Amino acid sequence: MGILLTIAYDGTDYCGWQIQKNGVAVQEVLENAVDELFGPDFSLLGASRTDAGVHALGQRAHLMTKNPCKIPLEKLPLALNSCLPADVRVLAAEDVEDSFHPIIDTKSKIYTYKINNTKHHNPLLRRYTAFAPATLDTCEMSRAAAHFVGEFDFAAFCAGGSSVKSTVRRVFAVSIAREGQTVDITIQGNGFLYNMVRIMAGTLVEVGMGRLTADDLPAIIASKDRRRAGKTMPPQGLTLIEIFY
Amino acid sequence: MGILLTIAYDGTDYCGWQIQKNGVAVQEVLENAVDELFGPDFSLLGASRTDAGVHALGQRAHLMTKNPCKIPLEKLPLALNSCLPADVRVLAAEDVEDSFHPIIDTKSKIYTYKINNTKHHNPLLRRYTAFAPATLDTCEMSRAAAHFVGEFDFAAFCAGGSSVKSTVRRVFAVSIAREGQTVDITIQGNGFLYNMVRIMAGTLVEVGMGRLTADDLPAIIASKDRRRAGKTMPPQGLTLIEIFY
Repeated sequence: MGILLTIAYDGTDYCGWQIQKNGVAVQEVLENAVDELFGPDFSLLGASRTDAGVHALGQRAHLMTKNPCKIPLEKLPLALNSCLPADVRVLAAEDVEDSFHPIIDTKSKIYTYKINNTKHHNPLLRRYTAFAPATLDTCEMSRAAAHFVGEFDFAAFCAGGSSVKSTVRRVFAVSIAREGQTVDITIQGNGFLYNMVRIMAGTLVEVGMGRLTADDLPAIIASKDRRRAGKTMPPQGLTLIEIFY
Repeated sequence: MGILLTIAYDGTDYCGWQIQKNGVAVQEVLENAVDELFGPDFSLLGASRTDAGVHALGQRAHLMTKNPCKIPLEKLPLALNSCLPADVRVLAAEDVEDSFHPIIDTKSKIYTYKINNTKHHNPLLRRYTAFAPATLDTCEMSRAAAHFVGEFDFAAFCAGGSSVKSTVRRVFAVSIAREGQTVDITIQGNGFLYNMVRIMAGTLVEVGMGRLTADDLPAIIASKDRRRAGKTMPPQGLTLIEIFY
């Protein structure tokens, strides 16, 4: 049987979603919790490989267990949470068809990149935002963001070390919103390349600072040249908000 | 000469504002930073003794140095921040009269107590909110909160171990606001007793859960009996927002 879990986590103290040698992974602590409830006969496949330090409010993972779950599905999040550290919470559990695949069946994902845009970084936001002291021109950033919408080869927005077959992705929407001293960049797309959201955010920040203009964006995208786009923003500003099936 | 500093901090990893034997205090790391810039001849007096785990966005501290500051006042926050850990930030520095006293001259203070009111505690909010899974009735909480406004003997809202002369305080305003899945209790008063805001918040949460009604509040206040009021809420939900002179 298959169960689709919705998971939130503070990525600060993790080496990312996926199990690695250099630290504790979110998948690892979740597998430990599943093991406590179900025993060792299960597989757990995450929908999105978030990087070290990246957060999630709507990560999904597909749990396949050999034996049917003795805990009623609606009680499963609470049961798993009692075995999890406070920085990882299972928010929901639902039955899915045996044919369901958490990665292949993804229709779109939403990420938000948050920037604390003020003179001194707010210490209460430092784990969940990047910091930019120069006032960002969010109108120009919005104009620039519109150029990302559509199906493009986003090779200029892909970090090295990636081995994907195609760098073509479709971006459905990009919005820029200032809330108090925080600027949120929210991006919905059918899939994202390695560090793509963080490089898009870095490029939009350069626009916000006046180092690039909105009109530069089409040529940067068309160049497929990573060196033309902005810096990769740090992981702590990035949160995986939702995955749609 | 006297300088009034405005300070923000994430209190999670501190034993509180004031220097104590059982942990690192915010005052301590700030004094270390001042020492690096000014040398050892100074005194630093905080306006509010926030407890272990309590946060601040607008703490104030009065810095008296023997020698005039060589760093221009407007550059002082940046200079101090370069000597401070990321969870403490100096936001502003201003000259004050020699006669200024950061505690005695306080006209009022604002605290906010934040509660994550949802089924599973949001891991991105866990350091800065308390958690209440049962839906809180914020309308009834607002009705209850109105009873706190005025000058009262708040002995029922004072933790034991306090040695104040008088437990009379004036509360100017209490507001309850729901923002998404978070309920904010914001309280402005001319001064607060030991744990007073956390006990007021605990009492309002009992009202929100239906264990007390708004109409119970006047009798609880009049009783001056700590056992009649609600529980002391945990420190992580509390933030000192602003101090007015």
